[in-house]
Amino acid sequence: MSVIFLLDLFGTAVFAATGALAAGRKDLDLFGVLVLGMVTAIGGGTLRDLTLGLTPVFWISQPVYLWVAAAAGIVTVLLTRAGILPGRLLPLADALGLATFCVIGAERAAAAGAAPDIAVLMGVMTGVAGGMIRDVLTGEVPRVLRRELYATAALAGAATTVTLLAIDAGAPLAVWCGLLVALSLRLAAMRWNLSLPIFTHRT
Amino acid sequence: MSVIFLLDLFGTAVFAATGALAAGRKDLDLFGVLVLGMVTAIGGGTLRDLTLGLTPVFWISQPVYLWVAAAAGIVTVLLTRAGILPGRLLPLADALGLATFCVIGAERAAAAGAAPDIAVLMGVMTGVAGGMIRDVLTGEVPRVLRRELYATAALAGAATTVTLLAIDAGAPLAVWCGLLVALSLRLAAMRWNLSLPIFTHRT
Amino acid sequence: MSVIFLLDLFGTAVFAATGALAAGRKDLDLFGVLVLGMVTAIGGGTLRDLTLGLTPVFWISQPVYLWVAAAAGIVTVLLTRAGILPGRLLPLADALGLATFCVIGAERAAAAGAAPDIAVLMGVMTGVAGGMIRDVLTGEVPRVLRRELYATAALAGAATTVTLLAIDAGAPLAVWCGLLVALSLRLAAMRWNLSLPIFTHRT
Repeated sequence: MSVIFLLDLFGTAVFAATGALAAGRKDLDLFGVLVLGMVTAIGGGTLRDLTLGLTPVFWISQPVYLWVAAAAGIVTVLLTRAGILPGRLLPLADALGLATFCVIGAERAAAAGAAPDIAVLMGVMTGVAGGMIRDVLTGEVPRVLRRELYATAALAGAATTVTLLAIDAGAPLAVWCGLLVALSLRLAAMRWNLSLPIFTHRT
Repeated sequence: MSVIFLLDLFGTAVFAATGALAAGRKDLDLFGVLVLGMVTAIGGGTLRDLTLGLTPVFWISQPVYLWVAAAAGIVTVLLTRAGILPGRLLPLADALGLATFCVIGAERAAAAGAAPDIAVLMGVMTGVAGGMIRDVLTGEVPRVLRRELYATAALAGAATTVTLLAIDAGAPLAVWCGLLVALSLRLAAMRWNLSLPIFTHRT
Repeated sequence: MSVIFLLDLFGTAVFAATGALAAGRKDLDLFGVLVLGMVTAIGGGTLRDLTLGLTPVFWISQPVYLWVAAAAGIVTVLLTRAGILPGRLLPLADALGLATFCVIGAERAAAAGAAPDIAVLMGVMTGVAGGMIRDVLTGEVPRVLRRELYATAALAGAATTVTLLAIDAGAPLAVWCGLLVALSLRLAAMRWNLSLPIFTHRT
């Protein structure tokens, strides 16, 4: 699954770029850029590994994830300053990163022996928790809790992967199908501005 | 201790309801309702299990906690929209949930071999950490850090349980006595508006 | 390394004092003082132990860290109310605490078998993560992400320690040299107001 590994690194870089941009919105310094980049990129997978008991967590045995995230954060700053950050491509890249993370997270949890419902949850967590920590660190209510279909795309992708794994379709097919489902749903949500119902209540 | 198990699920549902209501105060979407409900309900026990090294954490081997939390979040939205949420009963239910969580957390830590002071701390953490994460995710300074006696009730209940366990009174007696102590203190604090002294300091 | 152990407890007390003062700025109650004090003091080491898989985490086998943090929080309140808190000494004490935490964190990670880059990261995390959680709990964007050289001093100290360990210089020498490097850099940053470049970007 080396293509999946490359996609995973790609998602790591893209998520780190969103962290770096969030740092830029709050006038953070270079350390803030690095922290937000890394936390956004590896936060979800870290929570997944911690709760599953898969320690040391993945980036300790594979520090390449940290280096990619750090490099992506710095490159984002440089490209932004040079005025050549492909800002309109970022949401598309983010959709691909989300799709990759959710299916990899679900597959990893299933491989660790998690029950199907837990594996789906772990996929969603891998996809969205890093961005939630990024938002909390910059003083925002996490966007994923109130914007257009984002977590739902991760849920659909993870559920697809887990279902295919359950019927012994094999990991590669399960991962690729899940990835396509998540990516399609996320792109559709962006294209047609789909969203979940909002719950408003004041006491 | 099946009554305790039922009380634990009851506390899970009540805590999830407070998470869903917090989501409603911030105009979150359905995913936000589910996340806040689950995080409030299982956040404290998750931190307890992680720091004790009891992984996979409890809701991975017993997903019923997640489902109860998710269902309670959705039911809260429905009841609120229908205008029939028993809002005045919620604080009473929350007191019972807090009392249950703190003694179960202390008992679980003691059973895992934690020293008495650590077991008490774990009881308090089980009772209050989920609500703290809920508040941080919605951009609030955690209420438990500044309102009427709440954590103190959890502390008293956990200490009672740990003390009785230390003198070999048996888990059922220890749990029930701790629960009664925590519940009484919490209800008394609500009834007479008891609170801890506030610390104010500007530099 | 009993002097290092004492320095570690000293750093714990100082970090807890900064947590208590943060509680005072937000009008928290006594429980808030205790929580912020403990979280600031042990938050970084807890994250380090969790991600490395060193569970139960350090303060469970050595509760003295918790008691020192709790006591320091209460003493801070008392000294502040009496008007005799040595406010101008606190930043100096904090620099010593930071230097101690980052080298101890790096040494502990290296001793657990972490690769050099991971050990450095763990040192930085041990030094700064507690303060970040403190700031998030009080509704602030973490200061360490945007102020004068703070994390960089921890990074230099941790890197010094890890390098000396890698060339078999022995733990005591590695720890003391790292501590001196971190302390010097932090004090220099305070004296001459050194800082990292800020990244500002609005979309």
